[in-house]
Amino acid sequence: MAKSRFEYVKHFEILDECLRNCWIVVRVDGKNFHKFSVAHNFKKPNDDNALDLMNESACGVMRLFHDIILAYGASDEYSFVFKKATKTYNRRASKLSSTVVSQFSSSYTFHWTKYFPNQKLLYPPVFDSRVVLYPSDMNMRDYLSWRQADCHINNLFNTCFWNLVHDGMTTKQAEASLKGTNSSEKNELLFSKFRTNYNDLPQVYRKGTIILRKKGCADYSKKDELFQPNSNSRFEVLHEDIIGQDFWTEHADLLT
Amino acid sequence: MAKSRFEYVKHFEILDECLRNCWIVVRVDGKNFHKFSVAHNFKKPNDDNALDLMNESACGVMRLFHDIILAYGASDEYSFVFKKATKTYNRRASKLSSTVVSQFSSSYTFHWTKYFPNQKLLYPPVFDSRVVLYPSDMNMRDYLSWRQADCHINNLFNTCFWNLVHDGMTTKQAEASLKGTNSSEKNELLFSKFRTNYNDLPQVYRKGTIILRKKGCADYSKKDELFQPNSNSRFEVLHEDIIGQDFWTEHADLLT
Amino acid sequence: MAKSRFEYVKHFEILDECLRNCWIVVRVDGKNFHKFSVAHNFKKPNDDNALDLMNESACGVMRLFHDIILAYGASDEYSFVFKKATKTYNRRASKLSSTVVSQFSSSYTFHWTKYFPNQKLLYPPVFDSRVVLYPSDMNMRDYLSWRQADCHINNLFNTCFWNLVHDGMTTKQAEASLKGTNSSEKNELLFSKFRTNYNDLPQVYRKGTIILRKKGCADYSKKDELFQPNSNSRFEVLHEDIIGQDFWTEHADLLT
Amino acid sequence: MAKSRFEYVKHFEILDECLRNCWIVVRVDGKNFHKFSVAHNFKKPNDDNALDLMNESACGVMRLFHDIILAYGASDEYSFVFKKATKTYNRRASKLSSTVVSQFSSSYTFHWTKYFPNQKLLYPPVFDSRVVLYPSDMNMRDYLSWRQADCHINNLFNTCFWNLVHDGMTTKQAEASLKGTNSSEKNELLFSKFRTNYNDLPQVYRKGTIILRKKGCADYSKKDELFQPNSNSRFEVLHEDIIGQDFWTEHADLLT
Repeated sequence: MAKSRFEYVKHFEILDECLRNCWIVVRVDGKNFHKFSVAHNFKKPNDDNALDLMNESACGVMRLFHDIILAYGASDEYSFVFKKATKTYNRRASKLSSTVVSQFSSSYTFHWTKYFPNQKLLYPPVFDSRVVLYPSDMNMRDYLSWRQADCHINNLFNTCFWNLVHDGMTTKQAEASLKGTNSSEKNELLFSKFRTNYNDLPQVYRKGTIILRKKGCADYSKKDELFQPNSNSRFEVLHEDIIGQDFWTEHADLLT
Repeated sequence: MAKSRFEYVKHFEILDECLRNCWIVVRVDGKNFHKFSVAHNFKKPNDDNALDLMNESACGVMRLFHDIILAYGASDEYSFVFKKATKTYNRRASKLSSTVVSQFSSSYTFHWTKYFPNQKLLYPPVFDSRVVLYPSDMNMRDYLSWRQADCHINNLFNTCFWNLVHDGMTTKQAEASLKGTNSSEKNELLFSKFRTNYNDLPQVYRKGTIILRKKGCADYSKKDELFQPNSNSRFEVLHEDIIGQDFWTEHADLLT
Repeated sequence: MAKSRFEYVKHFEILDECLRNCWIVVRVDGKNFHKFSVAHNFKKPNDDNALDLMNESACGVMRLFHDIILAYGASDEYSFVFKKATKTYNRRASKLSSTVVSQFSSSYTFHWTKYFPNQKLLYPPVFDSRVVLYPSDMNMRDYLSWRQADCHINNLFNTCFWNLVHDGMTTKQAEASLKGTNSSEKNELLFSKFRTNYNDLPQVYRKGTIILRKKGCADYSKKDELFQPNSNSRFEVLHEDIIGQDFWTEHADLLT
Repeated sequence: MAKSRFEYVKHFEILDECLRNCWIVVRVDGKNFHKFSVAHNFKKPNDDNALDLMNESACGVMRLFHDIILAYGASDEYSFVFKKATKTYNRRASKLSSTVVSQFSSSYTFHWTKYFPNQKLLYPPVFDSRVVLYPSDMNMRDYLSWRQADCHINNLFNTCFWNLVHDGMTTKQAEASLKGTNSSEKNELLFSKFRTNYNDLPQVYRKGTIILRKKGCADYSKKDELFQPNSNSRFEVLHEDIIGQDFWTEHADLLT
């Protein structure tokens, strides 16, 4: 059989090497997760088990790629920051993006029953992923700030929305009642109507989740790691502000 | 909180629209699957359950994307051919590639116990994916021919190799003994030493698997499909030659 | 001096190989040529010398690149069609695009005095260029049809416009008077007011210019050609319809 | 005539926007300039008129693009550094690259007789161009250092080579005699055999040419500039070291 006659088709593949000396961010995003969350009876506005499963899956990705220095997630999305100098897969965007989202999706499915022992997984969850490059440290920090600002904005809205719904409104009424309100009006609504001080809500809802590698904690050898899917002891999981300078001062090593 | 101050980072994302009027092929490929197959005691050279699980996962992808006209798989890889005129995700390569590999990975994990009731899944499987464009029908056919030729070449080698190993050789000895042999020498070895006529082996091992949509079989509505992960009745699963003209004459509609 | 210390910067260059088996079209377009034509007293609506200079420059490009099978130009733009299988510059888009526009710009300046012996060239003319890929023959033909249709539309408008202006209208009045008129109304205006039958105007204005290589006319050796800037005897220069089938039937070799 | 029927071909054009917040460098490079320099009797190893013509052409490019902050040239090449935040042509690589090389090529041809009054230009010169992105200031500085280091290395070699040739060697003999020599051996050869102290040679040969915009020197309005091709009074032309820190300390404004 003439193998070589067809092999020319390999050359139609286009190289997609990421520009050097840029931060490589891979963001994974749930596809149709609103429907997924309803089908699987996620608690609203936030389901702790679902968030824990996202975090577990993110740890799986960080275990696979030693050059990820930080992951940030909220709701049904997670961003992974590869160090600027990474040579993983020769910086090929499609390889980085596809293996990250594959590992994330498999892990999410794999660990489902650990976090939802009483809820059957009805169908395979799907995520998309994309690669974005950031030339400067500040661009990369601003990216993370953007995601954390979004987390806050969405959570404030969802907290109001679901309080109204649990209080008896239809979803349409709740949406109409929140339309056009600003941040302080939403805070006021929560306080006056539901005796809730927004800032007292758990940080994980308001700030999302940051995963870092613990310093001085040796990585498992490449050989072992895939067989240790549950050992996350070398990761640090935080729910704090990443927008201000404090985080970056405390974790100055991330930018070196 | 200043949402807009950070939103500029969105514009660092690069558009990656596929050239129009080209066949879009997404190939999914197992990462470290040799190790995975050993860890999970796959039968060698071919494990029927593992192949069935690959095929089931491929059907899941075809159920998600109505514009995939054909899928071809062998061993731990699967290729999905989108029709030339597809507008799915506005032809954005990263979206197509990532959702295909995510759905495939999730499905593989999701359906594991159906095909391996007695073998625990030890860790989440990982696949990569890539997009390749083919301008002409013949280029796309040659791509599929390339993959099927590879399937044959690999299967012939693996059949010899594992027969030798099961017969008592070490893997090193088997590899050395096959080094430099051509196709007919391998056929001869199988016949003389193991009384095996290569051409009598199951087609699925020698030709791989082709999945087509059954004609006249209405797709489920978009709404229903994710909840029907097991209904593959509208797909046709073939194990036949895709290199010659016969297949394409019989399925002439694929190229229109 | 440490040469190697800095050489790493070479690797920031991104490869931009054109997808194989596609027609590669490079289009060159005058920058600010309205101003240029006024400054150099071009006759309106069409200046024969300016068109001849464009054609001469296009021949210079075709002499440089043997894989250009056809060039089409009108007004201040020219498109060059490289054969699908060209390996010129390893199909690198930036190389093809930049050398085409450089040769075109130099030639335009170099040959100026031949076509404008009594008009000094006041400043260097500037063109931009771009690469566009067309997978199928019909896509490529449609590209050329698009340019020729544009040539006609623009020429019909400009012929009306300048007749009105030469007849005494201001440019603003002429523009206003033509606003919203369709093709047959413009034809009618030309006929009734200026006794001009549009279809009797020279083909070069209405159809633009097609340049082909003469069959059986051996190319000069690469060595000689740059020193023969004026010998265009091996090119065929046509001003005919390229939209219909006739042209492509007569020149069927172009698509093989 | 159906304009719209063909217009779909526009959508085959691929956007090539440069990543934001990166230095955009466009390098222009002479094509077959060894042959060109022989044909036009350039003095060897360095021809002052040819260098002046390159510099004049570079000024033409800087006049066209106000966002070029620095140009560096040597021999038959020139690099143009656009400021990181430039929005010229919406950062489209093909537009930037093609207009730079077009303007450069036209200018070179346009100004030829000013610098070579007694040498006819025999044929249009051709340059290629490419775009390279540099994320950090140091990457961009290293790019310029790379080009200046190359200028030195090439000039040292060429000075030795042409001294040997002018002294009676054939070009083959000169090349053989220099093969494998290092920098100090070449310096020694120049000194002992030709009484030449390399460091006493003009800076323009050893360091190349840097062009900056004069501070406080208002740009001409866009309207005027194309008609002022000879007024370079607002540019500063330097021949000094760009590798060390001194240059960047003195011109600290370039990096802000």
